[in-house]
Amino acid sequence: MNTRYSAFYDLKRPVREVVTKRLIGINQEASFKEGVSKMVEFNISSLVITDNGRVVGFMTDTDVKRAVAQGFTPEMKMKQVMTTDLITVNISTTIREVLETMSKNKIKHLLVTEQGKVVGIVTIRDLEHMVRQTLETYISRE
Amino acid sequence: MNTRYSAFYDLKRPVREVVTKRLIGINQEASFKEGVSKMVEFNISSLVITDNGRVVGFMTDTDVKRAVAQGFTPEMKMKQVMTTDLITVNISTTIREVLETMSKNKIKHLLVTEQGKVVGIVTIRDLEHMVRQTLETYISRE
Repeated sequence: MNTRYSAFYDLKRPVREVVTKRLIGINQEASFKEGVSKMVEFNISSLVITDNGRVVGFMTDTDVKRAVAQGFTPEMKMKQVMTTDLITVNISTTIREVLETMSKNKIKHLLVTEQGKVVGIVTIRDLEHMVRQTLETYISRE
Repeated sequence: MNTRYSAFYDLKRPVREVVTKRLIGINQEASFKEGVSKMVEFNISSLVITDNGRVVGFMTDTDVKRAVAQGFTPEMKMKQVMTTDLITVNISTTIREVLETMSKNKIKHLLVTEQGKVVGIVTIRDLEHMVRQTLETYISRE
């Protein structure tokens, strides 16, 4: 994060303001092929995997590549292929902490929880978009 | 592309100035698994596929997902899985034309040629990065 940007928007604002609440998911019993097809269909770079409506796994573009690199076939079940080590932040977490968590874990997507339940997702792209908008507002004020 | 940005950097500059010349590739006889492993190893979102040193195919994160969605297995050869419909721009092409080509074809990666030979790659991320740098320079001049 460039320190010059930091001056132009509030890193203390909660992630609540940028979180995407439209989560696209698939049941853990679906195949890897079906899960990835859903990512292609909706043109998304991450997918949540559910069991009885509860989020139990996650899959990003990077995870898809890792799965292929490990030799996982399209017929395997999502529950065998998905990432179960979920990294989450609470919806009240500040943007600064979100950026630190992404940086520390070298990830670009983060699940957002509220009262212990996954309610949304935030990506580094969302945060970059926020930076651009703030810069634009700043410039148009000149 | 936001028109407000356009004022701050020269869309007439050639793509030569932002092209990445470090191409990472794999032979078309390698397996899909080996190709994707290379993407994971180098943490890249696109790979060129070669035959006798000539670029004959391309594979992006989106292509990997499409391949899995089509049921392609890790053991298949890159030449069976890769995208062969290569969209390229000449290294003298302006940034504006590059953006238009990406937009028209709904792609985020573009191969760059010089004298008919693929010499590099440009991504929408590179162009966004360029926008940010120009904005920063503009602001620091205030």
